[in-house]
Amino acid sequence: MHLMKDAAVCLLSGGLDSCVTTTLAKQHHSKIHALSFSYGQHHTKELKCAQKIAETLELDEHLIIELDLTPLGGSTLFSSSKNAIQNHELNSIGNSIPNTYVPARNTIFLSIALGLAETREADTIYIGANAVDYSGYPDCRPEYLSAFQAMANLATKRAIQGDRIEIKAPLLKMSKKDIIKTGIKNDAPLQYSWSCYRGEEKACGHCDSCQLRLKGFNDAGYQDPIEYNDYPAWYKQQ
Amino acid sequence: MHLMKDAAVCLLSGGLDSCVTTTLAKQHHSKIHALSFSYGQHHTKELKCAQKIAETLELDEHLIIELDLTPLGGSTLFSSSKNAIQNHELNSIGNSIPNTYVPARNTIFLSIALGLAETREADTIYIGANAVDYSGYPDCRPEYLSAFQAMANLATKRAIQGDRIEIKAPLLKMSKKDIIKTGIKNDAPLQYSWSCYRGEEKACGHCDSCQLRLKGFNDAGYQDPIEYNDYPAWYKQQ
Repeated sequence: MHLMKDAAVCLLSGGLDSCVTTTLAKQHHSKIHALSFSYGQHHTKELKCAQKIAETLELDEHLIIELDLTPLGGSTLFSSSKNAIQNHELNSIGNSIPNTYVPARNTIFLSIALGLAETREADTIYIGANAVDYSGYPDCRPEYLSAFQAMANLATKRAIQGDRIEIKAPLLKMSKKDIIKTGIKNDAPLQYSWSCYRGEEKACGHCDSCQLRLKGFNDAGYQDPIEYNDYPAWYKQQ
Repeated sequence: MHLMKDAAVCLLSGGLDSCVTTTLAKQHHSKIHALSFSYGQHHTKELKCAQKIAETLELDEHLIIELDLTPLGGSTLFSSSKNAIQNHELNSIGNSIPNTYVPARNTIFLSIALGLAETREADTIYIGANAVDYSGYPDCRPEYLSAFQAMANLATKRAIQGDRIEIKAPLLKMSKKDIIKTGIKNDAPLQYSWSCYRGEEKACGHCDSCQLRLKGFNDAGYQDPIEYNDYPAWYKQQ
């Protein structure tokens, strides 16, 4: 038995990492307020997946905030037509920073989560940030999250009253393999999680995100429960 | 003559402080990207004022981001009907934290400004934060802004490449009187700035924000160029 803490806010993109993170959070908190964003990403399929995850986990609230970040520009995730995205644009891991980096995204999402945590009297914010597979993203690094925490401690009315809101990233140092094993062990609804950068009916199997996910399932020794259009040559069916 | 620096992002609410701040920024930067938010505030008149200010100052870009923060709740500024707002709700200065405090607002706005600064290659973000008159707002304090700066230095792709984006709040420690004097000296278009919490045709003259503004003009010895429905008893026409 876990000691149940008060309410928490979970950033729930609908991806694999946020699905596992929210599942873990649910075990420790009496109330979960999930928060998703419609921010101009072309893979809005993720949002439908976020809704399915929230329903399956019977979360207390699931807010989808409309925040069009496309005027900022600067990311291939904002391409107006999914057909226009070339494969090489979705395969940039190994470059210093992936093309799919959205300027200040985690900072923006965590800030709104902070506002929600304040009004919902939540004591914790969960984020599925991971510094292993996507180490090119500046806002997934432990030192970044520590600095956000220090800022958050000064930012809110509750902070002034001495009541901290803690930022937790339980997957921060896990490999994709370990995230998947943790998800399966804790009955995370991975069948509803979505990783593919393309928002098609089935996952493409070839973008960076599909390949990382499939490699994770391979390494963990499990079959990925979602459907794919195709598999990379190296993928072994379990 | 000022040495002109590169592009800057200015948070431009349409209020008096952001009007003066943007006017000052314009003198130091070759390009200004102004950023406003339609976030569910009932005084959208502010946004029209922001547009007039941006036009008058001939700014290079003025982005209005739609971000509905009303689902967060927690502020009288989100009241759905302006008629429903009682006077006492707009007069809370002297309480520890005003009712008009919007949870994590500056953090959310600065975060989006950070994303914009990154894609526009701006080296500075200006915010009209002021720690004197509204000292009840946690996210207007110098220590908060320093912590945001420390976080921002770790948050972006450019930060990783050693290229800092500096947060500047030139009015932080000025009294309203000095802000108004600075605005007049620098030809800030104060006639288009809007402070009233009510979004009516003319400013009400009685909410906290109107009273602070009028007191500032009184102390500075100038006539406020905007129109009021009424004036507080203590106000002396210049």
